[in-house]
Amino acid sequence: MNPLSVSSSSTRGPAEHDIRDQIVAAANEHFSQYGYSKTTVSDLAKAIGFSKAYIYKFFDSKQAIGEAICSNCLSQIIAAVEEAINAEGISPTERFRRLVKTLVTKGIDLFFNDRKLYDIAAFAASESWPSSQVYDVRIKHFVQQIVREGRELGEFERKTPLDETVESIHLALRPYINPLLLQYNLDVVEEAPGLISNLILRSLMP
Amino acid sequence: MNPLSVSSSSTRGPAEHDIRDQIVAAANEHFSQYGYSKTTVSDLAKAIGFSKAYIYKFFDSKQAIGEAICSNCLSQIIAAVEEAINAEGISPTERFRRLVKTLVTKGIDLFFNDRKLYDIAAFAASESWPSSQVYDVRIKHFVQQIVREGRELGEFERKTPLDETVESIHLALRPYINPLLLQYNLDVVEEAPGLISNLILRSLMP
Repeated sequence: MNPLSVSSSSTRGPAEHDIRDQIVAAANEHFSQYGYSKTTVSDLAKAIGFSKAYIYKFFDSKQAIGEAICSNCLSQIIAAVEEAINAEGISPTERFRRLVKTLVTKGIDLFFNDRKLYDIAAFAASESWPSSQVYDVRIKHFVQQIVREGRELGEFERKTPLDETVESIHLALRPYINPLLLQYNLDVVEEAPGLISNLILRSLMP
Repeated sequence: MNPLSVSSSSTRGPAEHDIRDQIVAAANEHFSQYGYSKTTVSDLAKAIGFSKAYIYKFFDSKQAIGEAICSNCLSQIIAAVEEAINAEGISPTERFRRLVKTLVTKGIDLFFNDRKLYDIAAFAASESWPSSQVYDVRIKHFVQQIVREGRELGEFERKTPLDETVESIHLALRPYINPLLLQYNLDVVEEAPGLISNLILRSLMP
């Protein structure tokens, strides 16, 4: 099971999943147009053509729908990262550069360009929704994998405790992956991730 | 002359400076209570007991008053940094740690604790007021000074172009010095600046 997807009750069958997906898709459409914060479940019900009670059968709250949307979005970013970094025959250094580049470009694309997901993603980040916490854990895991490989190959230094290295790299990347911070970094986003990657890679040198 | 202070016309005498200071102090008081964005020059005039026209003799706009307040505040941070890093007989590494620590603690103190300066500082940062630009230039200058000294003493690496090193360190510190970003980092502010300093110092190792 994809760890980023919102867990659903085990008693639900595939048909119910389809309806959940339908609600999520319609809500996504609606939020993109009217914004997440301004929309109520009643507004959604009206727009989708379901009763409010029917929607509540599948989702406990507006946040639960937002979580499902956010989770889909973050899963897409994670999938793109996996595709980018899991290539054969590339060095940990190159893998790290691809990680940063994919996180930033895909994040900007989803949060700020294609759809107006920013509203929901910002809520998720500011209120530490489970999807947002899982996202951070996944990114730290990618970083750890790459650092560990780099250490094993002698490409990165081994003196600093692995946990500290991973934690500080995640902190240094945060302004470009967390949508709340990214909104203030859009003017430096062309150059900054590259410069920060270089700085981090220098910090990893043996 | 302090480069962070707002330049005033050369024809103004010391008495006029006193009145400017008086307006700034009263405005600071007023903004702290009612917020910068919600206050108009008319509100200020009423609160201070001057006519609006009289205030406009000294300041072109509300922003000009905000700039003066912001500039005072940022000057205090710069002064605290200078005191902290200009000690004799400390290494560039220790100087750098002091720079980061002072910027963060003094910034939090002024922006978020003592007075409600955050409102004005956030405007200054988001609209790139001159005071905010000068602040960034000053910080980069401190970083450059320390890196240059560290390179001369053989404590820091010399392969990376100095400009790139300074630029990337400034970027890495930005989340903890820029009030707009700092507001989202208050929950990590106990640990993060230390971790980021360590990462930066590792990146500087020869």
